[in-house]
Amino acid sequence: MCEANAYLVRNGKEELIMEAVDTIEPENGDLRVVNIFGDQKVLKARIKSLSLVNHKVFLEEKE
Amino acid sequence: MCEANAYLVRNGKEELIMEAVDTIEPENGDLRVVNIFGDQKVLKARIKSLSLVNHKVFLEEKE
Repeated sequence: MCEANAYLVRNGKEELIMEAVDTIEPENGDLRVVNIFGDQKVLKARIKSLSLVNHKVFLEEKE
Repeated sequence: MCEANAYLVRNGKEELIMEAVDTIEPENGDLRVVNIFGDQKVLKARIKSLSLVNHKVFLEEKE
């Protein structure tokens, strides 16, 4: 499996939002994050950057 | 390795931009896409969505 952990970057700090993320998709201006277990979170954020070999997805808050 | 393929979504079609992508990072308003072989592309785009179990990253053009 090639899932990743999603982090919200805020004030230069990385806050773990969800582990084992499979899909991230825009939804009505927000971002729906879903992991391989079916857990879901909807965040007012955008995808900032990826480091897939390190299994990391970085999100940033949307104003 | 858990790299993915990056696709640019344009007019509803997915165009393969780069295989085996490791990192995607913002750079001066553009997006730098780097694969595990060190190949790089800089695109006027943003990260739209992810489907990591399917090894897919979708980008969209920035106006």
